[in-house]
Amino acid sequence: SDTNPPATVDADVIDTASQLIDTALNSSLGFDIVESLTTEVGPRLAGSEAEQRARDWGVKLGESLSFDRVSVEPFSMPFWDRGELQIALTSPYQQALYGTALGGSGTSDQPIDAPVVYFRSIHDIETVEAGSLKGKIAFIDGEFMVKSQTGAGYGEANHKRRVGWQHAERGGAQALVIRSVGSDSHRFPHTGMMSSKEDQWATIPVIAVSNPDADHLRRLHELGQTMSMRVHSTAGWKGSVSSGNVVFDLVGRDKPDEIVLIGGHLDSWDLGTGAVDDGAGVAITTAAAELIARLPHRPRRTIRVVLFGAEEVGLLGARAYAEQHADELDQHVLATESDFGAGTIWQLVSNVNAEANPVIDAIGRVIQPLGIARGGSDVPGGGPDIIPMAMQGVPTVRLNQNGMDYFDLHHTPDDTLDKIKPAELAQNIAAYAALVYIAAETDVEFRTKKDEPEASTADE
Amino acid sequence: SDTNPPATVDADVIDTASQLIDTALNSSLGFDIVESLTTEVGPRLAGSEAEQRARDWGVKLGESLSFDRVSVEPFSMPFWDRGELQIALTSPYQQALYGTALGGSGTSDQPIDAPVVYFRSIHDIETVEAGSLKGKIAFIDGEFMVKSQTGAGYGEANHKRRVGWQHAERGGAQALVIRSVGSDSHRFPHTGMMSSKEDQWATIPVIAVSNPDADHLRRLHELGQTMSMRVHSTAGWKGSVSSGNVVFDLVGRDKPDEIVLIGGHLDSWDLGTGAVDDGAGVAITTAAAELIARLPHRPRRTIRVVLFGAEEVGLLGARAYAEQHADELDQHVLATESDFGAGTIWQLVSNVNAEANPVIDAIGRVIQPLGIARGGSDVPGGGPDIIPMAMQGVPTVRLNQNGMDYFDLHHTPDDTLDKIKPAELAQNIAAYAALVYIAAETDVEFRTKKDEPEASTADE
Ligand SMILES: [Zn+2]
Ligand SMILES: [Zn+2]
Ligand SMILES: [Zn+2]
Ligand SMILES: [Zn+2]
Repeated sequence: SDTNPPATVDADVIDTASQLIDTALNSSLGFDIVESLTTEVGPRLAGSEAEQRARDWGVKLGESLSFDRVSVEPFSMPFWDRGELQIALTSPYQQALYGTALGGSGTSDQPIDAPVVYFRSIHDIETVEAGSLKGKIAFIDGEFMVKSQTGAGYGEANHKRRVGWQHAERGGAQALVIRSVGSDSHRFPHTGMMSSKEDQWATIPVIAVSNPDADHLRRLHELGQTMSMRVHSTAGWKGSVSSGNVVFDLVGRDKPDEIVLIGGHLDSWDLGTGAVDDGAGVAITTAAAELIARLPHRPRRTIRVVLFGAEEVGLLGARAYAEQHADELDQHVLATESDFGAGTIWQLVSNVNAEANPVIDAIGRVIQPLGIARGGSDVPGGGPDIIPMAMQGVPTVRLNQNGMDYFDLHHTPDDTLDKIKPAELAQNIAAYAALVYIAAETDVEFRTKKDEPEASTADE
Repeated sequence: SDTNPPATVDADVIDTASQLIDTALNSSLGFDIVESLTTEVGPRLAGSEAEQRARDWGVKLGESLSFDRVSVEPFSMPFWDRGELQIALTSPYQQALYGTALGGSGTSDQPIDAPVVYFRSIHDIETVEAGSLKGKIAFIDGEFMVKSQTGAGYGEANHKRRVGWQHAERGGAQALVIRSVGSDSHRFPHTGMMSSKEDQWATIPVIAVSNPDADHLRRLHELGQTMSMRVHSTAGWKGSVSSGNVVFDLVGRDKPDEIVLIGGHLDSWDLGTGAVDDGAGVAITTAAAELIARLPHRPRRTIRVVLFGAEEVGLLGARAYAEQHADELDQHVLATESDFGAGTIWQLVSNVNAEANPVIDAIGRVIQPLGIARGGSDVPGGGPDIIPMAMQGVPTVRLNQNGMDYFDLHHTPDDTLDKIKPAELAQNIAAYAALVYIAAETDVEFRTKKDEPEASTADE
């Protein structure tokens, strides 16, 4: 291929992409979609009846728009339910704590009243001796999460959420309470999934409390106060249920088997209405594809929008998609997901065949007026639900959003529609429409033949 | 008195006041006090065991500082308890709502499951016909509260909280739900007291839901959806209990019977830890007096700090104070309260004898470097707990704080210590210290002999 001329994008394609940007910036379609999803369906916990209603909503939406095919691709999954929680400080005095169970938390058969053992960080509990926490509730504090545009502080802060329970259980604790993984200072707990260990989940209640509550516990600890808590959680696993991915296709006019895949996830945590996580992604990608569908002709390649099910509980929809489409993944020419809120996009990164970089660069120039910089061309990871297919060699790009405030809202009751700024959402849709249109209209090969892209393991 | 020379303040008094400002700006005493109160006592509902612990804390604090007299002045009061609340949307689908009972709310004997009747504003329910809401839950929406430095949007927004229940009960509703009175867009309900009507309180549950929840209900209503809710509240009145005011005195070296009174309220709503409402006021006024107490000599007049009990439920501590001190109110030469959070002070207003205005003006010049403008000299109202004594003729001044964000946090779970900026708190203490010192060192008469000042009815 050294002899091929450099990949280019025709001027009329660039023009059409620029027109799509103008159209998107003047359209309320995206906001209408996320308003409809959050209002008409509400919270949509993976595997719940509400997630089923979200799929029904998705089918109705797809059919009301200009897609050529609308389908639901079911899969089965284990259902974890939050149940009810009581949590309060009981000594040195009675005070309600604002907490919520983490995904995968176990049940307390009866209320647990126990003294608290304070750990300054996840590292301090890592060395706890087996049995030394018998009859106690462990509390893992931690530093306030670093805020950044990229969400860089999340991984470190999230360690205690992921594996804290394994140490607490080894110590024999009756329950684990952690400082929420979030960058806000509001009285909201942040939920999120724990990691299983050799397919085992926590058997004790594992609860996140808000940052102000954790601050309060820290201050009491620093005063030398002994603390006790009451914890009672009915969270737990409730057997196997059905979930599914909703798929919208715009069938390519020329190469219908070649697929440019975009999407977001349809499930949300159940505390808020999942507006920024990930109603926004559903709206951004659906609206971008719909604006392309309203052009006089379909692009050459098929554009597929996947509204993934059950992302929050372990990318279950994404894994099901990769399995169910295993025999056509080599026809997935490019994939990307929107799952980092509704903030302004500031960077385009990619991980495609080097010879296709001029096309990505051309896309970068088209969307630059939106305030988007061209970032690295060797950055793997197209979004969490893209990981399973990226691991099978599907090339990826990503439009990085400003995540400065994302972890203020992430997985809290406060993830509601009012947090989305329509103009920022429209900027996202404009960028996606231009990107996806050009990727579907070109016939350049994005796939790297030799190097498999590394998948990122970011959880969003 | 037309022949008296204009009131002035001696240069050395001005100097000392300026030194107090410097000291206050470099002191952490105020923050230490509010940290201690919110951490060691926590929430302190009027009439509760926690409010008793707050009085004990107050006595200990006063005794640990430089005051000459520390006392508790008890009074009895009816106790309203929040109890437990369940509130959820049950149709068109199941969704938790973030709500809380309003002060004075009645109890539901059993869970209420009923259709919702939507009222766009308090004005729309004012004309409801008797009996027309039988078997229903009334929901009063309303406009988003106007944000302002002065808190000007509160009165109008608060109308539905105050009297909404009277219309709902006339209509025969089983419960009333209202949009929270607050200027934030977070998933926190704002509590606060209702108004009684001819000494009667609501017999039905009256619940405030967060602004995002109210937005959600509005959107569903506008979609033409019929809504139902489940409401179950065990809130109610629990008989007579004891409360009290905590009083700290710095006895005047020259005119010990003349009292310059400052203070805040010791009780808080029970959802947060009452940091901005009104731990801040307790800290600001106590710290200001303490810094004056550390001067080589006591000022001429007595400085009294009153930590009022049971403010939130109807100025009960303030009324008790005015009654218990009725025979010495004419010796209260000036009074003011800090009860509008911990934001920067931007204005000094007053309502004193016109011949004493030069002294207030001089105070204004001393605190001007703190960014404080001299406002009106005929502005009544020294703060809510000052109302009962102002109605008996006690002259008032007020240091107006920036309330732009006050009603974001006001009466929510989010009123916690992290919301106080130490530098802003210190600016408050500096201004109070200078004001109170000069008022106590001068012998000018602030009292207006003929005109009784009008009391404002602001609830803070
Ligand atoms: Zn997500
Ligand atoms: Zn998420
Ligand atoms: Zn107050
Ligand atoms: Zn208040």
